[in-house]
Amino acid sequence: MPERNRPIPADRRYAYDGIDRVSHEHARLSVLTSLVSHPKGLSFASLKQLCALTDGNLSRHLQVLEAARLVTISKETAGRKPRTVCSITAGGRKRYFEYLAVLEQVIVDAAGAAKAARAKGLRHAQGT
Amino acid sequence: MPERNRPIPADRRYAYDGIDRVSHEHARLSVLTSLVSHPKGLSFASLKQLCALTDGNLSRHLQVLEAARLVTISKETAGRKPRTVCSITAGGRKRYFEYLAVLEQVIVDAAGAAKAARAKGLRHAQGT
Repeated sequence: MPERNRPIPADRRYAYDGIDRVSHEHARLSVLTSLVSHPKGLSFASLKQLCALTDGNLSRHLQVLEAARLVTISKETAGRKPRTVCSITAGGRKRYFEYLAVLEQVIVDAAGAAKAARAKGLRHAQGT
Repeated sequence: MPERNRPIPADRRYAYDGIDRVSHEHARLSVLTSLVSHPKGLSFASLKQLCALTDGNLSRHLQVLEAARLVTISKETAGRKPRTVCSITAGGRKRYFEYLAVLEQVIVDAAGAAKAARAKGLRHAQGT
């Protein structure tokens, strides 16, 4: 059964087990979303700019993503200038969308809570 | 202008600056979603169970959330037994929903990418 359709036991309703450590980290989430949006791959320079990361930070996170087999990194020669091209793998794409399904569940839960609070006028019941 | 309506400069399209470190951490995201869904507050024991956290882990993350003024922690006496009650603050609720708006943007971006990939049949262009 796919992750998003599996019933969640009531006693761990908000555990969100499908949030995976590799994809959830902020910079890596940026990198994966960039790459999923550019299935032909992106140069290191473009990725750095799109995600607003430093060289060092991007390198470090790409290493983590490559080790987890979510991305591939290859060298290409355009004219005389070599460039590094990063692409999401088929497995990386699958895992990214499984992770996103859990984020969607968080949003659904929160939207339900917001709606219930509005219906009950429970603003006063919150702390300050 | 609210965060979600602010135009994103093209050169940092996937930076997602609104992902805040306090709310984004997995356990704290679980705790905040539980508390936003229970505006009257939750006992430490219920929160621990709903988020599938250990005592130590929950205590540690509650300290971070309390220091950031996103939650309040109070002691109540029910009969002779004291219990710890955790509630989200009004500021915490606001910040949580601002953060969620950024997650929604990630999902919108990814959904757009998935749709474009399906339309162009670009599966073959991905690495393996």
